[in-house]
Amino acid sequence: MSYVRDAWYVAGWSSEFDDSLKRVVILEQPVVMYRATNGSMAALEDQCPHRLLPLSKGKRIGDDIQCGYHGMTFNCEGRCVRVPGQDNIPASAFVKSYAVHEKHNIVFVWMGDSRDANTDDIFDLPQFHSDQWHAHQGDALHLKANYLNVAENLVDPAHVSFVHPTTLGNSASENVPVHVDTEGEVLVAWRWIRDAPPVGFFQKFGGFEGNVDRWHYYYLHLPCTAVIDFGSADTSRQLPEELRDEGVRIFALHFLTPVNEHYTIDRWMHLRNAAVGDEAASEQMDAMFRVAFNEDKEILEAIDEQEQLAQNRKPIRLAIDKGPTVYRKRISAMITQAE
Amino acid sequence: MSYVRDAWYVAGWSSEFDDSLKRVVILEQPVVMYRATNGSMAALEDQCPHRLLPLSKGKRIGDDIQCGYHGMTFNCEGRCVRVPGQDNIPASAFVKSYAVHEKHNIVFVWMGDSRDANTDDIFDLPQFHSDQWHAHQGDALHLKANYLNVAENLVDPAHVSFVHPTTLGNSASENVPVHVDTEGEVLVAWRWIRDAPPVGFFQKFGGFEGNVDRWHYYYLHLPCTAVIDFGSADTSRQLPEELRDEGVRIFALHFLTPVNEHYTIDRWMHLRNAAVGDEAASEQMDAMFRVAFNEDKEILEAIDEQEQLAQNRKPIRLAIDKGPTVYRKRISAMITQAE
Amino acid sequence: MSYVRDAWYVAGWSSEFDDSLKRVVILEQPVVMYRATNGSMAALEDQCPHRLLPLSKGKRIGDDIQCGYHGMTFNCEGRCVRVPGQDNIPASAFVKSYAVHEKHNIVFVWMGDSRDANTDDIFDLPQFHSDQWHAHQGDALHLKANYLNVAENLVDPAHVSFVHPTTLGNSASENVPVHVDTEGEVLVAWRWIRDAPPVGFFQKFGGFEGNVDRWHYYYLHLPCTAVIDFGSADTSRQLPEELRDEGVRIFALHFLTPVNEHYTIDRWMHLRNAAVGDEAASEQMDAMFRVAFNEDKEILEAIDEQEQLAQNRKPIRLAIDKGPTVYRKRISAMITQAE
Repeated sequence: MSYVRDAWYVAGWSSEFDDSLKRVVILEQPVVMYRATNGSMAALEDQCPHRLLPLSKGKRIGDDIQCGYHGMTFNCEGRCVRVPGQDNIPASAFVKSYAVHEKHNIVFVWMGDSRDANTDDIFDLPQFHSDQWHAHQGDALHLKANYLNVAENLVDPAHVSFVHPTTLGNSASENVPVHVDTEGEVLVAWRWIRDAPPVGFFQKFGGFEGNVDRWHYYYLHLPCTAVIDFGSADTSRQLPEELRDEGVRIFALHFLTPVNEHYTIDRWMHLRNAAVGDEAASEQMDAMFRVAFNEDKEILEAIDEQEQLAQNRKPIRLAIDKGPTVYRKRISAMITQAE
Repeated sequence: MSYVRDAWYVAGWSSEFDDSLKRVVILEQPVVMYRATNGSMAALEDQCPHRLLPLSKGKRIGDDIQCGYHGMTFNCEGRCVRVPGQDNIPASAFVKSYAVHEKHNIVFVWMGDSRDANTDDIFDLPQFHSDQWHAHQGDALHLKANYLNVAENLVDPAHVSFVHPTTLGNSASENVPVHVDTEGEVLVAWRWIRDAPPVGFFQKFGGFEGNVDRWHYYYLHLPCTAVIDFGSADTSRQLPEELRDEGVRIFALHFLTPVNEHYTIDRWMHLRNAAVGDEAASEQMDAMFRVAFNEDKEILEAIDEQEQLAQNRKPIRLAIDKGPTVYRKRISAMITQAE
Repeated sequence: MSYVRDAWYVAGWSSEFDDSLKRVVILEQPVVMYRATNGSMAALEDQCPHRLLPLSKGKRIGDDIQCGYHGMTFNCEGRCVRVPGQDNIPASAFVKSYAVHEKHNIVFVWMGDSRDANTDDIFDLPQFHSDQWHAHQGDALHLKANYLNVAENLVDPAHVSFVHPTTLGNSASENVPVHVDTEGEVLVAWRWIRDAPPVGFFQKFGGFEGNVDRWHYYYLHLPCTAVIDFGSADTSRQLPEELRDEGVRIFALHFLTPVNEHYTIDRWMHLRNAAVGDEAASEQMDAMFRVAFNEDKEILEAIDEQEQLAQNRKPIRLAIDKGPTVYRKRISAMITQAE
């Protein structure tokens, strides 16, 4: 099992961090994170190089961390600044320091060599910067599942008819083929379901009276960020693809953080062009998302358990699998290239 | 670790199954079982060949099962009848279908190739068909133990004196030698304890006033079914072996279902020639059996834990081990022969 | 992972044993222990050589143990004295018998060949025999940690400043160098902190008003016994090293019992030259020791978890590590020598 290390991963919402020492595990690497006195984030390898005690078990001394076992002290850059009981500091007395950056109230960590980190590469969307759009942070969904399985679920419009029949999908979409574009850096899978009753989500939030045209666009930014652009408009409007902003349009964002081979955190939030500024609507949408994402969780955790049983044949591949298949190949190539 | 696949195993009592999808695991194979609309049982491999989601997480569409992830649908024979979003159905879109048969209100599954299944081979006893005998289903005893250890306990009359001193055995039998016949298809181990006080079970159910002649016959039908024929009669009657029906006679039946290397389900029931039709007596006997079988469980689970520790010498074998030793050899030969 | 087998290990305080069968696991070996009718301790391999049932699941027959499965019976020396159902007793029908000895109300077991056991080698201190000193047994601290990590904590005076700041250490000692003597059979690491405020322990028990001279001597008797000689005296007295008995002096004793690679029991007690005969003081000291030793437990268990993660560089070694480093080398040599 390997991971793409040269990438920005989400360690948490900004609100999850303060001056206390917080241990997070990303790509099987323990990281201790905290805010320095000037409010900026620090991220260090969470293990003292002496006896291996997690530094998160120690305490803050100003902006430094003092190990809780023998008092070795490291600054924000991971350099040892004190070894109690001796004057010289060994050259090997350091811990890895991670590049860390906050954007849109989200804390991103670069899991590769910090010298290769470029904050320009951090995920962004124009809608984050528009006052026509409302951004709202949801929860962290913890899944006992491999991140590849979680991610492929996020470039897979076909599952919503069956997994989310009361919220994000309904039977009208069951047989509608999926389009896939894997040419660019971002994988896209999408389909339109035209002239059908609105799904549960838009029954509740759209105010539609008759049939709607509904779209689902799944954008997968490798390795681990997904944007699901979904929305509806009255069928009578015959809305073309490029005018989706004129309908009720929602971007569900998923930031996947692989913890280990069988554990992934999915931090989800949304952006919307409706009910801007209405926090009660945000809460209601979160409630509906929670129902839907827990349906995904049940599926993905059952698959993880099943995959651990001995298998005597290869899984079959269907037409709807093009997005997931290309995704896995790309990840595999990124890991191989980095080695 | 291997199992005898070409055999009928018990999946449950008939009363455990209805039209809902029930996952059972037998010989490490997950199987989804349900009643079709005509009441007959269906048993399929419990794993979609696409993304490996257990089909038991899906739903019934008539007599078919629709996978809960992308809606692939399989009929009772395991053949895929629908792939949403595409017209052609790949040749590899099938799941294994298991032969399944109900008899005496017990559901049996053939774990090998269903074309080799012959319902004539399913366990039977003449007493199931006699109105002089009363049949009563007990419980499913779940043991964290290997099925070979559980089975050898069921061809081992010697343990009852020590494991079940208040119910099925007493000290009178401690030194009585065991007879063993391993010539036929069914292994038999037995002994008579003549002219001794009745054991707890027959104190309660026999109505005996003085000493009794008591017998224990252990019949082990390979691979996993045991019949324990035990009973008592007044010593004054000098009951010969072939007239056991004239005493109070009970057949304790054990159907072992190996789940995995360290987990076995023992479904137990009994047949008796006394208190026919008396369900209160059935319940009282179950209560006593529960005491006894939990004593076995404690022993067998302790042994399973102990066996997992490193061992530096071979276990010793005693005279009483002939039945168990032949049993293990036969199972081993059956597995080898099938490979 | 290996252990030093030719050594006396503590199985428990004398008060933990009576005529019932008690299973203890030492160096991954299960041992059943009990008092014979004359009060002396017996210790046998806790596994019947027939079906591997732990003998501790059986019952006492006089001074013998009868196995709970088929009644094989073993005497205190591990020799089989009865096989129910047969007259001859196989030569292989025995279990290992361990040498066991009580001293100072502590039960010691020799884990090697009992013929090599010499009770003169059992740990002792002159203070156990002096009426100027008070001995008091504490608790058994169960740690999910390897015994080598636990032991090195006990030849490591440097950690007390950081791990036990409210009880056994304070900041005055942070930079005081540690002396180490590894010439003799017993490893010693020590330091004096002169003219500093008393630590929490001696604030409570010393009755000191001003600054004190404080000492910590860590004696590690290989493989698994530690004596921590710590105490304080008024700084005005300028107490020399050899007159520590004139101060308030406490010996904290730790008897480590390795259970397996990730589990160690630390039975701790103390001897003191103050408050002799005062059991209320004993209880108060135990309360303070519990606080301190749970601080060690938290550190050592976090390290054990961390060590199980993949490591990509060697731990660094500091000046304070001389004692632990020599300890590990000595243990390794003892194990190699025994092979």
